[in-house]
Amino acid sequence: GELTHLNAAGEAQMVDVSAKPETSREARAQAILSTTDEVLNLLTQGGLPKGDALAVARVAGIMAAKKTSELIPLCHPLALSKASVDFELAADSITVVATVRTRGVTGVEMEALTSASVAALTLYDMIKAVDKAAEIGQVKLLSKSGGKSGDFRAAGYPAEGDAR
Amino acid sequence: GELTHLNAAGEAQMVDVSAKPETSREARAQAILSTTDEVLNLLTQGGLPKGDALAVARVAGIMAAKKTSELIPLCHPLALSKASVDFELAADSITVVATVRTRGVTGVEMEALTSASVAALTLYDMIKAVDKAAEIGQVKLLSKSGGKSGDFRAAGYPAEGDAR
Amino acid sequence: GELTHLNAAGEAQMVDVSAKPETSREARAQAILSTTDEVLNLLTQGGLPKGDALAVARVAGIMAAKKTSELIPLCHPLALSKASVDFELAADSITVVATVRTRGVTGVEMEALTSASVAALTLYDMIKAVDKAAEIGQVKLLSKSGGKSGDFRAAGYPAEGDAR
Amino acid sequence: GELTHLNAAGEAQMVDVSAKPETSREARAQAILSTTDEVLNLLTQGGLPKGDALAVARVAGIMAAKKTSELIPLCHPLALSKASVDFELAADSITVVATVRTRGVTGVEMEALTSASVAALTLYDMIKAVDKAAEIGQVKLLSKSGGKSGDFRAAGYPAEGDAR
Amino acid sequence: GELTHLNAAGEAQMVDVSAKPETSREARAQAILSTTDEVLNLLTQGGLPKGDALAVARVAGIMAAKKTSELIPLCHPLALSKASVDFELAADSITVVATVRTRGVTGVEMEALTSASVAALTLYDMIKAVDKAAEIGQVKLLSKSGGKSGDFRAAGYPAEGDAR
Amino acid sequence: GELTHLNAAGEAQMVDVSAKPETSREARAQAILSTTDEVLNLLTQGGLPKGDALAVARVAGIMAAKKTSELIPLCHPLALSKASVDFELAADSITVVATVRTRGVTGVEMEALTSASVAALTLYDMIKAVDKAAEIGQVKLLSKSGGKSGDFRAAGYPAEGDAR
Repeated sequence: GELTHLNAAGEAQMVDVSAKPETSREARAQAILSTTDEVLNLLTQGGLPKGDALAVARVAGIMAAKKTSELIPLCHPLALSKASVDFELAADSITVVATVRTRGVTGVEMEALTSASVAALTLYDMIKAVDKAAEIGQVKLLSKSGGKSGDFRAAGYPAEGDAR
Repeated sequence: GELTHLNAAGEAQMVDVSAKPETSREARAQAILSTTDEVLNLLTQGGLPKGDALAVARVAGIMAAKKTSELIPLCHPLALSKASVDFELAADSITVVATVRTRGVTGVEMEALTSASVAALTLYDMIKAVDKAAEIGQVKLLSKSGGKSGDFRAAGYPAEGDAR
Repeated sequence: GELTHLNAAGEAQMVDVSAKPETSREARAQAILSTTDEVLNLLTQGGLPKGDALAVARVAGIMAAKKTSELIPLCHPLALSKASVDFELAADSITVVATVRTRGVTGVEMEALTSASVAALTLYDMIKAVDKAAEIGQVKLLSKSGGKSGDFRAAGYPAEGDAR
Repeated sequence: GELTHLNAAGEAQMVDVSAKPETSREARAQAILSTTDEVLNLLTQGGLPKGDALAVARVAGIMAAKKTSELIPLCHPLALSKASVDFELAADSITVVATVRTRGVTGVEMEALTSASVAALTLYDMIKAVDKAAEIGQVKLLSKSGGKSGDFRAAGYPAEGDAR
Repeated sequence: GELTHLNAAGEAQMVDVSAKPETSREARAQAILSTTDEVLNLLTQGGLPKGDALAVARVAGIMAAKKTSELIPLCHPLALSKASVDFELAADSITVVATVRTRGVTGVEMEALTSASVAALTLYDMIKAVDKAAEIGQVKLLSKSGGKSGDFRAAGYPAEGDAR
Repeated sequence: GELTHLNAAGEAQMVDVSAKPETSREARAQAILSTTDEVLNLLTQGGLPKGDALAVARVAGIMAAKKTSELIPLCHPLALSKASVDFELAADSITVVATVRTRGVTGVEMEALTSASVAALTLYDMIKAVDKAAEIGQVKLLSKSGGKSGDFRAAGYPAEGDAR
């Protein structure tokens, strides 16, 4: 293995993808915000969204997917064909799952990870007045399809019976 | 406690801070990228940076700090007076620590968290060709000073004897 | 009267405001989306928001307020201290009202107008599959306070008894 | 009819367009700035542009077309193949007409509407020192061609004898 | 002398300016586009602007001044209080002069240089169909005032009798 | 010859490229920063990069290539397929060479020129505390291939024996 983003001299570059074929690609990533159940109840009520809180984080995640190549220096700009953000609510945590699709020459792993991260950061922003110690973790790629490097599925994803 | 970013009707808003005094504020946040030691050696050599890898992530983190209010919908724009990103290398992980300072009316917690997150995502981007299963975790505020809400220090931070 | 943004030779410039004092300033602007009552029911239900529709437009308006100086070429960048977007629902129209505040050297009329316009455009985006003929009108400044040029209030605003 | 941007649960998403074919698409939209004839004379002279005023608004409109997917949260990013902004001067109003073209999988209605709106807001910015009560109205789609949903033409557009 | 943007370990940082006082600062910079006199006549006519060409470059330069801290990684964001771009036309070259002012804690040299550079690149963009060999040179700081480091004036600037 | 970006009335436009075929295109451009040899030693040591200095400029140049259509008003947005920045160190100057590739309908000359310019400006930013009189020059297109207008090569480029 070697780092594709550095040349032989160790210099960073946005690698040449001009010879790669356009294919349909999808990536899904997650980020989990852990807080207390009291705080979680401020964001949701009995599992239902309360006010705009989740919608704000969802919009932030979708818009961040579109900004990925501005944030990650060596990432290629891509015309995204789909972006969505879902939330799975537990007693004291929210799992953000971002799904991004493109028909292009590079994958959308970074778009999905950036989307999930920014949605989780936006949730943190809304609760930080009451829980500065909340933490974001398990930011990882869940699955990826399309492209030469083949499909990827995180260990244990999806859980059995998962209808996604 | 209540969510400051939602009004009584549950509607999102960028809250009014026009009456708050300008003070010096600092926040420090971390994000930890976990991978394998083989992969970590591709990024560094014996603890020393190899090529541009860490520099690229550092620049990405600093630039992301400046973009925070474009990413986090209800975050106030701020004129940052300092931003830096440090890396602590372990055998199979890199801890990103972002420090941001301002002289303003709101804190810079979101700037520090966004900076650390984007630097970690940039590291992931550079290693994803060899380790798609790498994961980012423990994204959290380490410390905060300045402002009416007082100082904050994460449990166990800094570790004893820490010279920071 | 003369156009402040053009010099004597008719050349555009971002005028010098370095000698102006910082004061508290607020502006409020509106934009009205006119559609059919069938379509309006898709966005709301009996006057209550349905799903994320209004929240998405609200977030778009707040974020646009922060982007104003990137969009309007001769507009000074400003650190906004507040931004909010409200909706008033009628049978076949939605009035968007954006309120922006700053403590700065220039007014925030353009921020309020841009915020209201982008929120209304976002509503149009969500209904355009069912009503391409919907129209945005009465985009105007409702009120402005602070600054040397004094206060402004649009004719007939606020309506009598208005509690705003 | 239903809102394409909200899923069955009412959650916002950037809808999947990855299966749509690329076709040539065009959209044309307008926005009308109404002011007084005295003020209009400051922007133009006998129907001719005076100084940079109209050029500044034209550039703002063209650049805004390119920024549309950053402003409208659920709008797909598109590689525009043409953008232009025209002005029709009347005694006390300026009609902004924006035309946008792409070869892509989604239409460019939002790009044309955003372009016309921002050009009109830029004109307002230049005259607001002399006419804060100026108003922008009749922001609407004039025509659209290409794509599965077929062509659209606003009622009464173009006016008979219109050479466009 | 030492490089302020690298710490002792050679790591890049946005240096801490939180203790610096706010003062009025101005910087002026130039960039010169060299082409042929035939091409220059396409941009201007007898020294007068022809169509929108110079206005487009002027707007581009002013907007670029506002984007400087997004482009130059270690540059502090600043609230500019003035930005203007002037052109001096010679037989086969155009000198772009950008002037930027702020009331802040850091200087605006980078804003002036970025503004002049982008205005010159915009001129090149407009003539490249007829003169790809045109060249931009003498991009340099002309003068700077305000701030602890004192005033600066480029050798031979301004030329004697210069009324600027 | 005529200016493609202005129509017959002299009005700026982003010209229609919707009928142009997608081809592989590449452009290479340079910018040269001239300073003193003492200052150059602060950026490099014996020809080797010192700390992050060159990496920061390289990242800035690559990111600027992606921002070109936001900076140059009439430039079409393009999905870049490659971007790299190289430095050639002389005793008292650094030559920045930027290479950009796309598979698209317009060329990438402006992307390469913008990339080289911003990398050079970033170098200036890092040395300006010690040499405000440093100057950027010879900003020009070195070569271009692909597209209807044919290939271009600057006079004397590449120098004989150049392996590029």
